[in-house]
Amino acid sequence: MNERLLMLQSMLPDEVDAALIISNTNRRYFTDFVSSLGYLLLTRRDAYLLVDSRYCEAAEKQVSGCEVKGFSSLSDKLSELLRRDNVRKLMLEGSAFTLNEAARIIKLAKESGAECITTDELDNIISGQRIIKTPDEIDKIILAQRITENALKSTLPYIKEGVMERDIALELEYRMRRAGADGISFDLIVIAGEKTSMPHGVPGENRIKPGDFITFDIGALCGGYHSDMTRTYAYGFVSDKQRRVYQVVYGAQKLGLEAVRSGVSCRAVDGAARDYIYHAGFEGFFGHSTGHGVGLDIHEAPTVGPKSEMVLQSGMVVTVEPGIYLPGEFGVRIEDTVAVSTDGCINLSTLSKELTIL
Amino acid sequence: MNERLLMLQSMLPDEVDAALIISNTNRRYFTDFVSSLGYLLLTRRDAYLLVDSRYCEAAEKQVSGCEVKGFSSLSDKLSELLRRDNVRKLMLEGSAFTLNEAARIIKLAKESGAECITTDELDNIISGQRIIKTPDEIDKIILAQRITENALKSTLPYIKEGVMERDIALELEYRMRRAGADGISFDLIVIAGEKTSMPHGVPGENRIKPGDFITFDIGALCGGYHSDMTRTYAYGFVSDKQRRVYQVVYGAQKLGLEAVRSGVSCRAVDGAARDYIYHAGFEGFFGHSTGHGVGLDIHEAPTVGPKSEMVLQSGMVVTVEPGIYLPGEFGVRIEDTVAVSTDGCINLSTLSKELTIL
Repeated sequence: MNERLLMLQSMLPDEVDAALIISNTNRRYFTDFVSSLGYLLLTRRDAYLLVDSRYCEAAEKQVSGCEVKGFSSLSDKLSELLRRDNVRKLMLEGSAFTLNEAARIIKLAKESGAECITTDELDNIISGQRIIKTPDEIDKIILAQRITENALKSTLPYIKEGVMERDIALELEYRMRRAGADGISFDLIVIAGEKTSMPHGVPGENRIKPGDFITFDIGALCGGYHSDMTRTYAYGFVSDKQRRVYQVVYGAQKLGLEAVRSGVSCRAVDGAARDYIYHAGFEGFFGHSTGHGVGLDIHEAPTVGPKSEMVLQSGMVVTVEPGIYLPGEFGVRIEDTVAVSTDGCINLSTLSKELTIL
Repeated sequence: MNERLLMLQSMLPDEVDAALIISNTNRRYFTDFVSSLGYLLLTRRDAYLLVDSRYCEAAEKQVSGCEVKGFSSLSDKLSELLRRDNVRKLMLEGSAFTLNEAARIIKLAKESGAECITTDELDNIISGQRIIKTPDEIDKIILAQRITENALKSTLPYIKEGVMERDIALELEYRMRRAGADGISFDLIVIAGEKTSMPHGVPGENRIKPGDFITFDIGALCGGYHSDMTRTYAYGFVSDKQRRVYQVVYGAQKLGLEAVRSGVSCRAVDGAARDYIYHAGFEGFFGHSTGHGVGLDIHEAPTVGPKSEMVLQSGMVVTVEPGIYLPGEFGVRIEDTVAVSTDGCINLSTLSKELTIL
């Protein structure tokens, strides 16, 4: 078995004999194999990747550290393995199994003499394992981040008065994928004018006009890993109020970044950014958390929010993304993704955050 | 309540007091409202769309036929409604709820005096309702299909020797979205040469060369509805064997289309295409079903396969997509999407299926 599987095996509760993993990201994390369907069974004795005929040949070539088992009938193959390794208690991924999928496995396990645990316990164990990134994982996030930044830089000349938000978003995505990204990390947010006051606005037919802020919350996906960055640019000119709000968010983001360090609580990082915004008179206009973990999922542990007692450790990768949102007027958000280290953090984003007027 | 909700209400089993729907497609089907999160509660008394603050204003403007309820705490709002409408038995969508999401609702329902039904029964009722499309729904599929065809036509000049599969796929997607598609129906399949023998091949760095078949299995998403079409083109030249296999698939697809009519079983349509392929000597080289339903989901009921006893009815929309796959050599698939009518079917695809050499 590979190190990640051995680690997971060691963290399973004593009374548990096996874990069944079906989510694409967790399967990929433990096997380094990409497929749209598959079952990773980890028992006390061994680990098995069960795939259907489409993936069998490729999995046998690529996967090391767990045994590949092709199946035509999942039920037969899984029953055989549960019996062979004497599995009596089987944990399921509560965040990934639908009720229908779970019902099928619970029935099949019962017939093989095993009882299923259907809570979120396995999710929490794996999330705790994935929260610390290896240098290789961080390299993949950096690659995704470089592609994101280059796409944004090369899209800027395309932005003119009258261009639609959705077309800018499409140009960005096109450039990321031409540059080798597997895809985008999430539906890219490119919103302008009043719409920037909505943290999760959707790019539409709204057209760029002078005096607009334009928010770019964007990320590429490379080798399974996500990147996440937000920049807010102005188009044409800015008002004094826009300038002031921008500087407050910029200052808050700087304080948030400076607070990141192993041993510091997530709550403290959130507080560093939040207090600055509140003291500047914008309490009530920063409604979301300051950040979140990034990795194989675009949102993963830890949450960097006002209630998160989790303590940062070296190797965690988190965003720092405070914002101010003034309904009916405009909003500003600035976001970097950083890797936590013992003496601070390594900022994986390199793009300037000075107020930029396009 | 709108007609769709009244229909669903009338189809709930007698002992059930309410249904809770969370899947994006089903929520959209019953409310015509698009959101990434939301809960549709249908009781014996009324229907409620529960959305958070991001969607509340838009939902109140757009949704008719069910009551919009904004929530800051889902638990509080849902408990209140379950109690008010005296819900004792609540059905959940077994195909959409994860174990973790279900656990939360089951606990909350229990505290409000309701028991949850977690089987696939609600899925099956809704699937049976969605299987018959209205003219308006078919129009949306036609629009998606037109965009798909235009994108393919305009991408063909881009296809030259040495171009990579993944770049062709990206050009296709770019053109669909420039033409107004909300997105793609599925990860577009553009594969060439030997890879065409894999029904679900993934576009990669493989480059087009003379003598290749190129399979395009593509679709756009418009107004929530999918389209689905496959064409296999040759590049440069074709061998006699390629030509023969193409003609067999083309003949089988024609027979499949001719078999479609309300009152005919799905099995019979599958058989019409399959028998022709088997009799031509290619038994064992057509491993998938002949077709599937298309609508708000790219794969939905009915399955057009050898074991499907379901009888076609007017208003169903299904694909007819036989293929022959010769491992290590090449494959051919031809697919149209059609709307079933009383005297046959309306083919929603218009693109030629004659053997085309690019």
